Amino acid sequence: MKKIIYKNFPNIPIIKHLDIICGKANIKSSSRLDLALVIFKKLANVAYVTTKSQTFAANIKWLKENNNISKVKVLMVNSGNANAYTGDIGYLNLKTIIELLSSRYNCKEKEVIISSTGVIGEQLPMKKITKTLNKLSDEVMDKRNISWESFAKSIMTTDTFPKGIYKKTKIGNIAVNLIGIAKGSGMIAPNMATMLGYIFTDADLPSNILRELLIEINEKSFNSITVDNDMSTNDMVCFFSTRCISNNIKNIKDKKLQKFKEDLQWLAIQLAKKIIYDGEGSSKMIEISVLGANSYLDAKNVALNIANSPLVKTAIAGEDANWGRIIMAIGKSQAKIDQDKISLKFGKNLILKKGKLKNKYNESIISRYLKNKEIKLEVNLNYGNFYSKVWTCDLTKKYIEINADYRS
Amino acid sequence: MKKIIYKNFPNIPIIKHLDIICGKANIKSSSRLDLALVIFKKLANVAYVTTKSQTFAANIKWLKENNNISKVKVLMVNSGNANAYTGDIGYLNLKTIIELLSSRYNCKEKEVIISSTGVIGEQLPMKKITKTLNKLSDEVMDKRNISWESFAKSIMTTDTFPKGIYKKTKIGNIAVNLIGIAKGSGMIAPNMATMLGYIFTDADLPSNILRELLIEINEKSFNSITVDNDMSTNDMVCFFSTRCISNNIKNIKDKKLQKFKEDLQWLAIQLAKKIIYDGEGSSKMIEISVLGANSYLDAKNVALNIANSPLVKTAIAGEDANWGRIIMAIGKSQAKIDQDKISLKFGKNLILKKGKLKNKYNESIISRYLKNKEIKLEVNLNYGNFYSKVWTCDLTKKYIEINADYRS
Repeated sequence: MKKIIYKNFPNIPIIKHLDIICGKANIKSSSRLDLALVIFKKLANVAYVTTKSQTFAANIKWLKENNNISKVKVLMVNSGNANAYTGDIGYLNLKTIIELLSSRYNCKEKEVIISSTGVIGEQLPMKKITKTLNKLSDEVMDKRNISWESFAKSIMTTDTFPKGIYKKTKIGNIAVNLIGIAKGSGMIAPNMATMLGYIFTDADLPSNILRELLIEINEKSFNSITVDNDMSTNDMVCFFSTRCISNNIKNIKDKKLQKFKEDLQWLAIQLAKKIIYDGEGSSKMIEISVLGANSYLDAKNVALNIANSPLVKTAIAGEDANWGRIIMAIGKSQAKIDQDKISLKFGKNLILKKGKLKNKYNESIISRYLKNKEIKLEVNLNYGNFYSKVWTCDLTKKYIEINADYRS
Repeated sequence: MKKIIYKNFPNIPIIKHLDIICGKANIKSSSRLDLALVIFKKLANVAYVTTKSQTFAANIKWLKENNNISKVKVLMVNSGNANAYTGDIGYLNLKTIIELLSSRYNCKEKEVIISSTGVIGEQLPMKKITKTLNKLSDEVMDKRNISWESFAKSIMTTDTFPKGIYKKTKIGNIAVNLIGIAKGSGMIAPNMATMLGYIFTDADLPSNILRELLIEINEKSFNSITVDNDMSTNDMVCFFSTRCISNNIKNIKDKKLQKFKEDLQWLAIQLAKKIIYDGEGSSKMIEISVLGANSYLDAKNVALNIANSPLVKTAIAGEDANWGRIIMAIGKSQAKIDQDKISLKFGKNLILKKGKLKNKYNESIISRYLKNKEIKLEVNLNYGNFYSKVWTCDLTKKYIEINADYRS
């Protein structure tokens, strides 16, 4: 597979049966794109996963109350305001928007999905939003050729670049498209945290298959990244099928899905890595592989303990080969381990072999390796046969700067 | 109780049957106190709790192998090197030191307790340490009057001030002393993380009662603080009785212990708060009370989720009244809650009452409150009857500075 330049926004073709409309509602009072609509000309099939937070936002409540939405006409996303912890008024506001969209686009209310991201605890500026929604449809046709990028830009908060990825793939012999758009920069943690992800395909797949595929690929992509171990009130990943290209797939085990599934997993991982690359204030991306664990849960637990340790993250920010902090993080995971069996690599450089510091360990080699923008840590617990890989970023002064002053 | 000035080191009397000896071994090659001994003239009773890390240090292995040490002649503490993840050589070095001390002070090897704190993964500089131990006893007598402070200084790593606290208390009608010394600044988390605490009393209490008392008071003090949620390989809290003042206490439920227990809990909390006050790079101490939880575990879980959230900690560093992040942190705790019932106070200022923003909520009052050095957050879940209080500090650029460059 070709190397991904994380900051680049690729050329992504518009797929059939779908319109994108983006606008400026000045929700957070800066003049930028902050409202996006995707209109499915034919009802799309959809599946989604959402945050596990118990202080979930109004739009998540909508999904919970309309148990298992599987057909969708309109997706609306706004940035600048999460409509989270806004109580009854926040939920009424959400419903007002849904009514407006369902009447304008001639669909049932439960065929509308809303995502919001931004500040928690403030009411949506409803006048600005309804005014913008009312004038948006006029702008549709002109903007087509830049629209995926506009969509990606509209949903950004502290992101520094729009995130999209494209993959031409196949179901059996039939060419189909996979498109991924995401936002996220801080408050990213396991269980997806402040992260919005949208995957679109023109392949005609029923929502139950979309759902099974999404759950499977989500675990090793969006659920395997962490910036600060904070979990948001609003996150979701949605997977849409515009139902243009028929394939007659009825079962997820159909062998014709194999290549599609691999490419979907790849696309989701690349999208997740783009989020980490844009981690708030980050200067380095860190990939952590844990091998030889007693169970998959142990492997992931160890990997996330390393990924979430402020001491590991600051050491890497300082390009300090302080491998003792990785040992500390493994120790606190409470996974089944034997400290005398642990092997540790920084990139290709072996540091520990079964608990022993390598004979010719040369710290300057590691220090040089840590000057890279992408750091790979590999831990082999030599205890079992399970494996996990997660991604995080370093912790820098800039993270503090961004977050000590987010709202002003 | 009188107000504690966290940075002050109080006047602490030397108690009977105990000598303190401190020296400079240049372990981390700076000329400062880094090696301390406490010699108990009569064997002391002792109880301790240690880190739950599975990559525990050599000195913790010593305690595990000598199951339940209850009598102690010598306590040695060194800073600058944790003797953690140092394998067989590290353990042999530890044993060499123990042999030396047991022969010099004429006791059994298993009457020696060692604590170490500092960098992980480097071998102890044995020549420096043995040389210093050999010459230390000559210095004993001169230094008596400053010795608790010297002891506290010897065990510091990134601490910016020595930490001690003193309480005159009673068992029944008999006056006894309680003395607490601690170190810790980063890598402090539940389960005590890189934290060393030593509590001494001249009351004659058997080690099983010391143990029960310690476990009880530890939960609400050293196990209720967090700087960065990282857990160290070396932590311990020890509780020593020099057995000078007899009381005939045989049972922890003896009413004569009531006042002693209260004062012990108070002392441990003050000591723990001193550690937080000195949290790496911190500019504010944050006390988080969670009321109305469904269980004690839920209460503590919610409190620690708030205390460990980088987004909450950076907002407070920035004096930003971003209460939405507290809601986010409560939501990710997975404790039993109903988001429409949560009440929230900053100091005495009510922000949310049962899920609703206070009518006359005035952000400028909260912003002014956040200029204080000590911030109190109170969450009432209004869900049950359980309660927990934890302490943490804000997360600043200075934390990054200290930790990105710890070893150089």
